[in-house]
Amino acid sequence: MATIFLYEIAGTAMLTLLGGGVVANAILGKTKGNGGGWLMINFGWGLAVFAGVWVAYKTGAHLNPAVTLGLLSSGAAEYAPGIAVTAGSTIAYLLAELIGGFLGAIVAWLAYKTHYDQETDAGTILGTFSTGPEIRSYGWNFVTEVIATFVLVLVIIMFGSTPSGLGPLAVALLVVSIGASLGGPTGYAINPARDLGPRLAHAILPIPHKGSSDWSYSWVPIAGPIVGGVLAGLASFAF
Amino acid sequence: MATIFLYEIAGTAMLTLLGGGVVANAILGKTKGNGGGWLMINFGWGLAVFAGVWVAYKTGAHLNPAVTLGLLSSGAAEYAPGIAVTAGSTIAYLLAELIGGFLGAIVAWLAYKTHYDQETDAGTILGTFSTGPEIRSYGWNFVTEVIATFVLVLVIIMFGSTPSGLGPLAVALLVVSIGASLGGPTGYAINPARDLGPRLAHAILPIPHKGSSDWSYSWVPIAGPIVGGVLAGLASFAF
Amino acid sequence: MATIFLYEIAGTAMLTLLGGGVVANAILGKTKGNGGGWLMINFGWGLAVFAGVWVAYKTGAHLNPAVTLGLLSSGAAEYAPGIAVTAGSTIAYLLAELIGGFLGAIVAWLAYKTHYDQETDAGTILGTFSTGPEIRSYGWNFVTEVIATFVLVLVIIMFGSTPSGLGPLAVALLVVSIGASLGGPTGYAINPARDLGPRLAHAILPIPHKGSSDWSYSWVPIAGPIVGGVLAGLASFAF
Amino acid sequence: MATIFLYEIAGTAMLTLLGGGVVANAILGKTKGNGGGWLMINFGWGLAVFAGVWVAYKTGAHLNPAVTLGLLSSGAAEYAPGIAVTAGSTIAYLLAELIGGFLGAIVAWLAYKTHYDQETDAGTILGTFSTGPEIRSYGWNFVTEVIATFVLVLVIIMFGSTPSGLGPLAVALLVVSIGASLGGPTGYAINPARDLGPRLAHAILPIPHKGSSDWSYSWVPIAGPIVGGVLAGLASFAF
Repeated sequence: MATIFLYEIAGTAMLTLLGGGVVANAILGKTKGNGGGWLMINFGWGLAVFAGVWVAYKTGAHLNPAVTLGLLSSGAAEYAPGIAVTAGSTIAYLLAELIGGFLGAIVAWLAYKTHYDQETDAGTILGTFSTGPEIRSYGWNFVTEVIATFVLVLVIIMFGSTPSGLGPLAVALLVVSIGASLGGPTGYAINPARDLGPRLAHAILPIPHKGSSDWSYSWVPIAGPIVGGVLAGLASFAF
Repeated sequence: MATIFLYEIAGTAMLTLLGGGVVANAILGKTKGNGGGWLMINFGWGLAVFAGVWVAYKTGAHLNPAVTLGLLSSGAAEYAPGIAVTAGSTIAYLLAELIGGFLGAIVAWLAYKTHYDQETDAGTILGTFSTGPEIRSYGWNFVTEVIATFVLVLVIIMFGSTPSGLGPLAVALLVVSIGASLGGPTGYAINPARDLGPRLAHAILPIPHKGSSDWSYSWVPIAGPIVGGVLAGLASFAF
Repeated sequence: MATIFLYEIAGTAMLTLLGGGVVANAILGKTKGNGGGWLMINFGWGLAVFAGVWVAYKTGAHLNPAVTLGLLSSGAAEYAPGIAVTAGSTIAYLLAELIGGFLGAIVAWLAYKTHYDQETDAGTILGTFSTGPEIRSYGWNFVTEVIATFVLVLVIIMFGSTPSGLGPLAVALLVVSIGASLGGPTGYAINPARDLGPRLAHAILPIPHKGSSDWSYSWVPIAGPIVGGVLAGLASFAF
Repeated sequence: MATIFLYEIAGTAMLTLLGGGVVANAILGKTKGNGGGWLMINFGWGLAVFAGVWVAYKTGAHLNPAVTLGLLSSGAAEYAPGIAVTAGSTIAYLLAELIGGFLGAIVAWLAYKTHYDQETDAGTILGTFSTGPEIRSYGWNFVTEVIATFVLVLVIIMFGSTPSGLGPLAVALLVVSIGASLGGPTGYAINPARDLGPRLAHAILPIPHKGSSDWSYSWVPIAGPIVGGVLAGLASFAF
């Protein structure tokens, strides 16, 4: 249990540190990557997964409640070699992922502290923490998150049946792909811990011009990825 | 036969979901990736192949009639381990690829539903489904598609004679390459199912400002890739 | 001997087809990749090497006189498994590379035929075939080509002493690297066949608004890469 | 000892040659990559590491005092297979890295000589050699370098416990990641030799319009990476 906590917290923190960092670099004022564009953000998040997976390799590197619940619904016997699927281990994964997501966002804020202090646009500040839709439509935004997470979890499960020499690069490239292809409407949370953890950090951190944490939208990047992940786990029975 | 249908439909649907998605992200209004550029589209399509190949690994992941017919003309005995080349299996591959291409485009439309609803340019809408030339010249457009697909299928066949640890990444990078290098004139269909399937979806979906499905051009991204793939299969006898 | 010709011609043609293609896509008018930028060109050329190496794997995939002469000066016994280093095999490699470079450029021209027909800037047309300096200074341009090719050939030789699972991806990424880092002043020929072959094609092809083939500069991308490659071969004795 | 010097000097010189080169290409006037953007710089530096690691594979390819000191603080017994951790070997690594960093910057200057001669902005010239902050705040700039180097060294240490087929590509992608995600405030030195070596080169080279070498900032990209690397070495005991 302590192993799950240690590795999944560290790995998910690595994920939101590097993932939050690339968005901060792309959109906060005066950074070297300001205006770096969507492809830079896609590679940044994809490689954030890459680094996070190396750190949490020992516990299977879920880093994402949608992955944990997708594996659960797929009928897997183990979450990682030696870690059985039980109610206790499931809760440990989910909790560790959320804590890690929260902590990583705080470290990203420290790394960009001087830029946050000079930023005056509340929407830009929130955008470096959690996702938000370009066209607000709770139903369709939910659909987009379901589809994108379904792709993530189904392909991750398919990785298991065909070994390759790519290691963590496979899932990293999959995340680059989903970001480039399906991230346009909602910013591809595809991971409740990646969205809720940093949103909590946004709510408590003392950032000069921050505004609302947009809690009215916050259920979409939680419910959408959970539904998408569970559907992918169920769909995997067909293959 | 059911195996071919299941895997090739799923894999080709993954291909046109992610491939159509990246174009939608790049050119539909108000998306996060709007104006993301050609290289983002190239990586998006290349990684769409990456994801699709993982899903359809079990049946050799053709995902493309030009690949199926190229393998046929190369004199291969099997389309994938355990799947003999027969008239029946050939037709199953072709049909499954077309159905998958059609279904993936519909899911991509669902993912970008709110953006399609606000888009008013008919050419932009069609561009997210199927390919079209920048300078219309049926003969030369056909030549471009023949050359690009010849490269695709010949190099895929060469993969077979030298194993590497790259797995599906090799073909993904090949598709990035063809898009960046030979996609300039026609948008690199290089796959009849990737073009005809989504074009059929475009024809039937209820999209507010959609215009013609440009059927007068539609034969080019079917005939060009088939000719290019078959020529590559024949050329492979030289190596 | 026939094996060397077949594979090195095909591989080098693949190289200049895809490499010339990405530049055409980036700078000719009305292409889909117009204005795609330097990083797209870097990935395009790097992946052109990737595809070319797969095609010519059987003969070691030199595709470049600087590689052939670098291996010669490194004291290698074989150019590829089963192909001894002799005067005859050396000449066969050099000739095949030049012929392949020439043929690939012609196919790239066919793929972009309608765009060449409408292009009116002679410098743009030449730029899609062969390299030219941004600041003309034969001496310093030569130095830049020596340095860049030294890096290419030295690292290729170092690949040999440490196997990896990357296969042709290693040299492809090395070429992306050299283009991004050292391609700024001269456009990184780093390969006499890649520059002279297409320049000959430019000289003979019937392109409406083409101008001079700039023969006064043409010795730099021949002599620079040869000197760089030979120096790398000699330097490899130190490691 | 001579082995350490040979390989680490060559590898670190490769690093700052290609790393300095990509920044020169992106920001000096009249280069082909001018305005190529942050993602091009990220790939350029990442692949500079890729090339440098191949060259210095035999001595473990530290190329970076933060890596050497991180391994030291992690309690490793060897710096590379057959090279024990001793006071002597530690000093050899540090010295070789600094010398290599210095020499690579000089070669990069030679490659871009004509562009340096025409550049009139002193800040641009210094920017191609060493790092500087966008918002000067010694304390927070130090924090950013600590965090970024902590990520670098911790994940490198984690590589060791899970083999993959990626070889030097793993650390290359990690550096792309850190640049995209954490390079925004300070330009990610994350390596004292990469910053101090080129800064010394800047101080002595005869460049027409160069200004100050900004020695008042120079301690940040030395102290930050050392602290970050040592902390990562200590943190690795937890995993």
